[in-house]
Amino acid sequence: PKSFRVVVLPGDGIGPEVVAEAVRVLEVVSEKSSNFKLSLESHLFGGSAIDASGEPLPASTLKACQEADAILMGSIGGPKWGVNAKVRPEQGLLALRKTLGLYANIRPASLASESLLDYSPLRPEIALGVDMIVVRELIGGVYFGARKEQNVEPDVNVAWDTMIYSVEEVQRITRVAAQIALAANPPLVIHSIDKANVLASSRLWRKVVTETLTKEYPQLKFDHHLVDSAAMVIVSNPRKLNGVILTENLFGDILSDQSSVIPGSLGLLPSASLAGAPSVPSPNFKPTSGLYEPIHGSAPDIAGQGIANPIGTILSAAMLLRYSLGLEEPARAIELAVQRVLDNPEAGGYGLRTADLGGKVKTKGIGDKIVEVLHSS
Amino acid sequence: PKSFRVVVLPGDGIGPEVVAEAVRVLEVVSEKSSNFKLSLESHLFGGSAIDASGEPLPASTLKACQEADAILMGSIGGPKWGVNAKVRPEQGLLALRKTLGLYANIRPASLASESLLDYSPLRPEIALGVDMIVVRELIGGVYFGARKEQNVEPDVNVAWDTMIYSVEEVQRITRVAAQIALAANPPLVIHSIDKANVLASSRLWRKVVTETLTKEYPQLKFDHHLVDSAAMVIVSNPRKLNGVILTENLFGDILSDQSSVIPGSLGLLPSASLAGAPSVPSPNFKPTSGLYEPIHGSAPDIAGQGIANPIGTILSAAMLLRYSLGLEEPARAIELAVQRVLDNPEAGGYGLRTADLGGKVKTKGIGDKIVEVLHSS
Ligand SMILES: CC(C)[C@H](C(=O)O)[C@@H](O)C(=O)O
Ligand SMILES: CC(C)[C@H](C(=O)O)[C@@H](O)C(=O)O
Repeated sequence: PKSFRVVVLPGDGIGPEVVAEAVRVLEVVSEKSSNFKLSLESHLFGGSAIDASGEPLPASTLKACQEADAILMGSIGGPKWGVNAKVRPEQGLLALRKTLGLYANIRPASLASESLLDYSPLRPEIALGVDMIVVRELIGGVYFGARKEQNVEPDVNVAWDTMIYSVEEVQRITRVAAQIALAANPPLVIHSIDKANVLASSRLWRKVVTETLTKEYPQLKFDHHLVDSAAMVIVSNPRKLNGVILTENLFGDILSDQSSVIPGSLGLLPSASLAGAPSVPSPNFKPTSGLYEPIHGSAPDIAGQGIANPIGTILSAAMLLRYSLGLEEPARAIELAVQRVLDNPEAGGYGLRTADLGGKVKTKGIGDKIVEVLHSS
Repeated sequence: PKSFRVVVLPGDGIGPEVVAEAVRVLEVVSEKSSNFKLSLESHLFGGSAIDASGEPLPASTLKACQEADAILMGSIGGPKWGVNAKVRPEQGLLALRKTLGLYANIRPASLASESLLDYSPLRPEIALGVDMIVVRELIGGVYFGARKEQNVEPDVNVAWDTMIYSVEEVQRITRVAAQIALAANPPLVIHSIDKANVLASSRLWRKVVTETLTKEYPQLKFDHHLVDSAAMVIVSNPRKLNGVILTENLFGDILSDQSSVIPGSLGLLPSASLAGAPSVPSPNFKPTSGLYEPIHGSAPDIAGQGIANPIGTILSAAMLLRYSLGLEEPARAIELAVQRVLDNPEAGGYGLRTADLGGKVKTKGIGDKIVEVLHSS
């Protein structure tokens, strides 16, 4: 059997709790298969790494991540390492993304089960059938451009950041969006988001997206939306943006968080951040490096109580199997098990609900049931 | 009686249609009062000005705006003057904002009538009682920082924009937010929005907001939110942000549009863009210049049909009377007339609905009824 090294970064707050359940799930699919073996090893990262070593991304953690086949992360941060501290957990995350070249952030926002429709803040008739995948450029733009802080010469009363994009950066993220659109049957529509009526970087973005899709993927449909208008449509008529939402780093940060509340709980949603694929148009979408994490934060208010929803992390583990290890079958099995656990009894499921969905089932209770379903399938 | 000069910029698409009704309403309150007289004059602006003179903001229009006591605008833009054109209507708007120094954009988002709750895309129990006023910095940040287009030396493959803020720019917009918070009884809570965990300009923003409010307005409550988190809360639990949302130009563009769909129709919402007030802390909030416009666009698809909703423009006219002319009484009368026209019959109103709210009442029909209510009051 093929053997894969997976680095696990539990992180802070509820991170270790939700990661523990995803690790159990990965161990089960690994045991059940004769085609592959996973070897999992944990490393310090984020606030807990700051406490232990003074740095959010210790050299040993970075080295393990660089050598791994894939990385599974929990969540980082907390009031202990606040926005004013010199060393902050987020710096570790930004450094890890940049060092590994994880330029493609992929965040699906859709209902894992129709039984969850009642948890959406949108009216059911508006939330029904929402199915978007946000593809966010993750290591460019205003996150990594040159900047100047206040109280730094020459003008101590001014601070600035640079929103910068190159043709190559936009090309490669466009190709990722295109590959994801093509993986569906029929292919998904691509909605590119920018602020081309104001920003030079957005005008470059729009031009390169248009040229890349027109030349390299003539079979795909796409359109452009201004970011302010997209922020309206995601609330008023989100199905209009079904398909792939392709956007730059800062707009992607805002819009992916915004769209993630439609399915009713942040606790349900996974994400992937990928490197190296596809630098040229290619139907074989295989990243050279991948970091997988739930989209929720470290939720310090409920940490340690064993009540966090582990499903976002478990679905991140499924994405890890699919994208980084090329293991579609166990990925699909996990997704179906999750759906079964969430579906109401009338729909043939177990209807389990953690506290974020108004229920009483514990973190471990969700893990137990998913493991049980996987064993019996 | 005091006499005021109001410049009217009908603009493009549905702009002239909705402005015509607001002008009628202003004429009625002017006729009815013995304290003041309004003299209204129209000027070309936007796409129609490009067609007539080659420029979106002709010198004669700018001059009239500079000499006016206040400006009432409709909407600008349309497919005829697209994103790729050299001369675009938006350039006129950005130039007008910058030249007049309109740094404070004020956009309330609340239900004009509880009878409209059913039109919100959010569940009624989530939309009920939403009452936010977005205060957006309008002539700084990435909109007006240095930028470089693609295909310009030295690096033709790169484009960039600069997100830049000075201490003074943040101070003055913070004071506007504070004055608005203080005008309510009890004072409103201020929610300042930034991305201080990544951006230098946001760290300056957060520091200056904190210092200004702590020192100059110790009686006000405030907190800070990251923009990605705010974008979630506006959908999932918007009442949590009730009060004043204080933010920089780009975040304000996105968040104000996002929050504006909560009340059910963009057609209902007004805005004000103010200059000169208050550069120092002062309870007398009197701008030196003010531009008032509905938040909706020029809606070319329905232009010329007489079916657009004029209420956003009529409520903008009310804000004009209140802020620029200091005429609270007729401002309030207009707002009450609008509410009466929107309220369902059970609530003592007329329940009139334009097409954007699924009704059949025409633009002029709304204007007629508001004029009638004002005459009889
Ligand atoms: C923690 C923060 C720096 C990060 C970001 O803004 O990218 C987070 O919000 C995210 O979306 O992963
Ligand atoms: C037309 C455009 C330049 C403008 C902006 O982005 O400021 C508009 O979206 C607005 O909010 O008034």
